[in-house]
Amino acid sequence: MTRVLQVGLGPLGRRIVSDFYARRLGEVVAAVDPANDVAGKELSELASGAPAGVRVVATVEEVADWSSVDCAIVTTSSDLELVMPTLRTLLDHGVAVLSTCEELAYPWLRHPVFAQELDERAIRNGGRVLGTGVNPGFLMDAFAVCTTTACNAVRSIRVTRLQDASSRRVPFQRKIGAGLDDAAFEARAAEGTLRHVGLGESLHFVGHYLGWTFDRWEEELTPVKAERDLDCALGPIPAGHSSGVRQVARGYVGDESVAELVFQAAIAQPDPHDRVEVDGDPPLDLVWKGGVHGDTATSAIVLNSIRALRTAAPGLHTMATLPMQGCARPEG
Amino acid sequence: MTRVLQVGLGPLGRRIVSDFYARRLGEVVAAVDPANDVAGKELSELASGAPAGVRVVATVEEVADWSSVDCAIVTTSSDLELVMPTLRTLLDHGVAVLSTCEELAYPWLRHPVFAQELDERAIRNGGRVLGTGVNPGFLMDAFAVCTTTACNAVRSIRVTRLQDASSRRVPFQRKIGAGLDDAAFEARAAEGTLRHVGLGESLHFVGHYLGWTFDRWEEELTPVKAERDLDCALGPIPAGHSSGVRQVARGYVGDESVAELVFQAAIAQPDPHDRVEVDGDPPLDLVWKGGVHGDTATSAIVLNSIRALRTAAPGLHTMATLPMQGCARPEG
Repeated sequence: MTRVLQVGLGPLGRRIVSDFYARRLGEVVAAVDPANDVAGKELSELASGAPAGVRVVATVEEVADWSSVDCAIVTTSSDLELVMPTLRTLLDHGVAVLSTCEELAYPWLRHPVFAQELDERAIRNGGRVLGTGVNPGFLMDAFAVCTTTACNAVRSIRVTRLQDASSRRVPFQRKIGAGLDDAAFEARAAEGTLRHVGLGESLHFVGHYLGWTFDRWEEELTPVKAERDLDCALGPIPAGHSSGVRQVARGYVGDESVAELVFQAAIAQPDPHDRVEVDGDPPLDLVWKGGVHGDTATSAIVLNSIRALRTAAPGLHTMATLPMQGCARPEG
Repeated sequence: MTRVLQVGLGPLGRRIVSDFYARRLGEVVAAVDPANDVAGKELSELASGAPAGVRVVATVEEVADWSSVDCAIVTTSSDLELVMPTLRTLLDHGVAVLSTCEELAYPWLRHPVFAQELDERAIRNGGRVLGTGVNPGFLMDAFAVCTTTACNAVRSIRVTRLQDASSRRVPFQRKIGAGLDDAAFEARAAEGTLRHVGLGESLHFVGHYLGWTFDRWEEELTPVKAERDLDCALGPIPAGHSSGVRQVARGYVGDESVAELVFQAAIAQPDPHDRVEVDGDPPLDLVWKGGVHGDTATSAIVLNSIRALRTAAPGLHTMATLPMQGCARPEG
């Protein structure tokens, strides 16, 4: 029986708890969320499928019985600095921690000091910690690296993710800047609220495992322009306004771009797909037709990584230091 | 520095040694092949890129210095029973052993007793053993399982490998029965010399990691018929004769086929590709355009798995119990 502590009960945390019960993967023994309208509630009021009897507490310090916690799932923030206090407490209790914190998928990029601390703290206390999710964590990094297991040489790699946001949730459509004119798009881009967090992490993940030390790297953010009038859940999008966002990260060795990651999400995006192209020996060209659904897959990848993380050596892990054994089976 | 003992110097073994040196992955410190025209020769005469100074011996018992061997690569036979004596000797010396023996990719199918012996012997002596290659070992099993890491549920899976044999080696064209009429095809099929060895192993590999216990399974072998006159390196193929082979393995839970693996290799095969289709949540449909070149990839996958196997826990492994960290970097 896998006994989980869930930290964070926003939409993603609730979804993970529901999927965990629907898949009969174990039991949620404690739940934490500091929000006023969440702490104090029964978990069963928040996540379908959760049985009664688990009351959400406001901080990890309030968790009563650490001996009953096998692993923790943390879905609170993209920003590793904000997640660090929680991770410290969890690791000090020797827990296996999975988090969707995007910066944790490859923390050596923006937080090398935290990365070292997490590794040492985990090893000292017999804990484990992993940042994962569909992206970063799988599609544009660990999976892309995995495909090159079939190669004797990799000269360059390109990973593309083209998503049609038409049927996605309103917050997602807002996040990608659907409907904005040029000025509004630029303002949002300058604020930093448009960008998909984690593309730089994925780029450096790929670079690390393929043996490249980038001399420099860059990230571009441009609007996808609606070619005709469109409609979405946010309202109408006049032709010429933004239907979404295109974000490109490139890593260079010398003057050559050896790794390029393209993330594009837009309303009415034609031919959505994910793709890995490798200029190598042999060359590879791999397409996920229609793409992979992000919300579903992030929950799945977190839950499917629990067993591998729990049986791994203590320390800070990435999705490339664990075996990927596919869709986890129900327990019992 | 990775120090390798190469056992088996047929075309695949020679290719692996050449790739190992071309990729600067380490050093071959000893080599074994019992064939009269190979034992006693210098390795450098057999494999391009190998330096002088390693003389091929006829048996593993003749290896002089076990302290200099980090891992062994065994490319001798598809039949695990024939490879067992070699594996026993290697594991007793605590070596990490990678083998392209097809039956070793998932040995619990045909040789559960050997599988248990290998695991126990490896653990007792601090050795490790892995069966791998492009197929079985990667494309139709470990990789297919890996893709389902993005799924919350898998109801069924289909893996297809369609290869154009036109530009492949003559022995491969002969192996797939190119040019045979119906009677000759049936005779070869009955002999068992046509079939791609390892499809059953891949099927059970997939079944195991996706949590299915098959109530029954089957394997079919049929000719691919040339629709027009064709030519290949073996000679002309009249229309109606076999241009290759189609092999299908299916695993059933109750009356339902939940896993289907299709391997088809033929001269002038249109649209060659590899494909993984998952009926799941979310559904997946993944295509390697043009397919993955088999000879190149098998050598690559063996060499790319060395590091993961050496750092894994002692015992019998599969490609799903090791992390897949992609194309290995040169040493030094």
